[in-house]
Amino acid sequence: MRLRVMCLSLCMPTDAHRIVVGNYHLDGYGHVNNARYLEFLEAARWAWFAQHGLTAAARQTRLVVLHINIRYRRAAVLDDVLTVHSRLCEVKSRLLRLTQTVRRGSDTVAEAEVAIAPTDAAGNVVRLPDALRGVLAELLAAGDSEV
Amino acid sequence: MRLRVMCLSLCMPTDAHRIVVGNYHLDGYGHVNNARYLEFLEAARWAWFAQHGLTAAARQTRLVVLHINIRYRRAAVLDDVLTVHSRLCEVKSRLLRLTQTVRRGSDTVAEAEVAIAPTDAAGNVVRLPDALRGVLAELLAAGDSEV
Amino acid sequence: MRLRVMCLSLCMPTDAHRIVVGNYHLDGYGHVNNARYLEFLEAARWAWFAQHGLTAAARQTRLVVLHINIRYRRAAVLDDVLTVHSRLCEVKSRLLRLTQTVRRGSDTVAEAEVAIAPTDAAGNVVRLPDALRGVLAELLAAGDSEV
Amino acid sequence: MRLRVMCLSLCMPTDAHRIVVGNYHLDGYGHVNNARYLEFLEAARWAWFAQHGLTAAARQTRLVVLHINIRYRRAAVLDDVLTVHSRLCEVKSRLLRLTQTVRRGSDTVAEAEVAIAPTDAAGNVVRLPDALRGVLAELLAAGDSEV
Repeated sequence: MRLRVMCLSLCMPTDAHRIVVGNYHLDGYGHVNNARYLEFLEAARWAWFAQHGLTAAARQTRLVVLHINIRYRRAAVLDDVLTVHSRLCEVKSRLLRLTQTVRRGSDTVAEAEVAIAPTDAAGNVVRLPDALRGVLAELLAAGDSEV
Repeated sequence: MRLRVMCLSLCMPTDAHRIVVGNYHLDGYGHVNNARYLEFLEAARWAWFAQHGLTAAARQTRLVVLHINIRYRRAAVLDDVLTVHSRLCEVKSRLLRLTQTVRRGSDTVAEAEVAIAPTDAAGNVVRLPDALRGVLAELLAAGDSEV
Repeated sequence: MRLRVMCLSLCMPTDAHRIVVGNYHLDGYGHVNNARYLEFLEAARWAWFAQHGLTAAARQTRLVVLHINIRYRRAAVLDDVLTVHSRLCEVKSRLLRLTQTVRRGSDTVAEAEVAIAPTDAAGNVVRLPDALRGVLAELLAAGDSEV
Repeated sequence: MRLRVMCLSLCMPTDAHRIVVGNYHLDGYGHVNNARYLEFLEAARWAWFAQHGLTAAARQTRLVVLHINIRYRRAAVLDDVLTVHSRLCEVKSRLLRLTQTVRRGSDTVAEAEVAIAPTDAAGNVVRLPDALRGVLAELLAAGDSEV
């Protein structure tokens, strides 16, 4: 059940999203609750789309999460400044894969693989709009040369 | 800024909704975070409608919260069993008022006054469906004789 | 049950905290759920302390929420950029009061009065540390001349 | 990246935890947000411990989540009644594995593999208390004969 990260070396480089950990992010253990990270990841994915000017294109379908595989490596605590680095790993007609890493400085706090699919209003998986798919494929191909 | 509870004596009696406090309900202080109570209140309101067979009627409009006035009296902690007691206080054509009390045994943990309004899909306040308003008015009038 | 805002004119001016509304902030009505605003308010309060260099001082006690009186004026929806403006209204030895306003541009989305108290680890209300109280009283007295 | 469920046939049978989906569990897509499921899983894990009379024993250490691998199979919507079925899959001195399945009637809504570890207050992984480990190992060995 190891986290498979074989796609990382093929990924386009990272776009950071920044979170300051508040008291309400914590649970009774005094660390960020496991469920909160999924909200951080979601926010970072949209920040990633926004950064690439793809928000409107991405909203032409409903992107729903099919799968998240997340490993918690360190506890994040009050006042930590976390950044989420999102990398596109795979673009298919009906599927996107990203890896997302939550960091505190150079430490990895959590890392996740996320699969999302475009769906229609009824929840059926549909094809990515061609224009969006094209841009994503280019971003993926650009690889590490991309900021 | 005292919590006005003058409507309590006119209210219909309580319907309980039960919550077992989990670690993820807590914040870094080890008590239930102030925001979570609003989720407890929302769940209890719908339980109240369900208990009176009014779920379908209530869904004919979108009931949105206009105002919450909540006072936190005691800290709730891990494993506490909380019950939320909801009382209808006022029924108008475009407004409902409830008081909701969160208890742990006989202790009051938090108490809130909540005002909600029926709206249309665009968010405009509309009239309560007549049938719903009628039943609610009867429940209110039945007062303490009502279970 | 109108929101009393008489303290506003006495308040020190605003410090903004910025939130981009994500899909996970919404509920089934497609607007920010009422409970989420309390998380926004909490984040903004700590941003307010940080902005005034008071984080460490504020952490000498546990500041707990005693009371929130929040009125929801407009629905906030996906991609809205909200700012929370926090104003200190009252400083007493065992109590702080703030008003917090959530805005979207010049529109008021929600406004709240919040009372918080310093407590010890057992949850008992204690006195504000003198140094903190002094600084807060000065900020309050500086009133509208304060940024 | 298929969900590996090879441990299922070895697992002890299920203990259900029941959730009624509320409006605040949904996101802007009108379905339960992906992050919420992790709260459902956490609640169900503690319900599982409670059902086996193991709450106090489990609290002798802090059980933290190391890894969650969750696949979302169907959308859950307002008023759905979900049950979470938790199965213990592996008991080691410093690790527990469970599979947890969220169901709506006979439909699988989501399924997850969860790895958790006992830690001390500093977050270091420690050994499961012997008594707890013993009981868990017996439950695991009892397999499908267990309720």
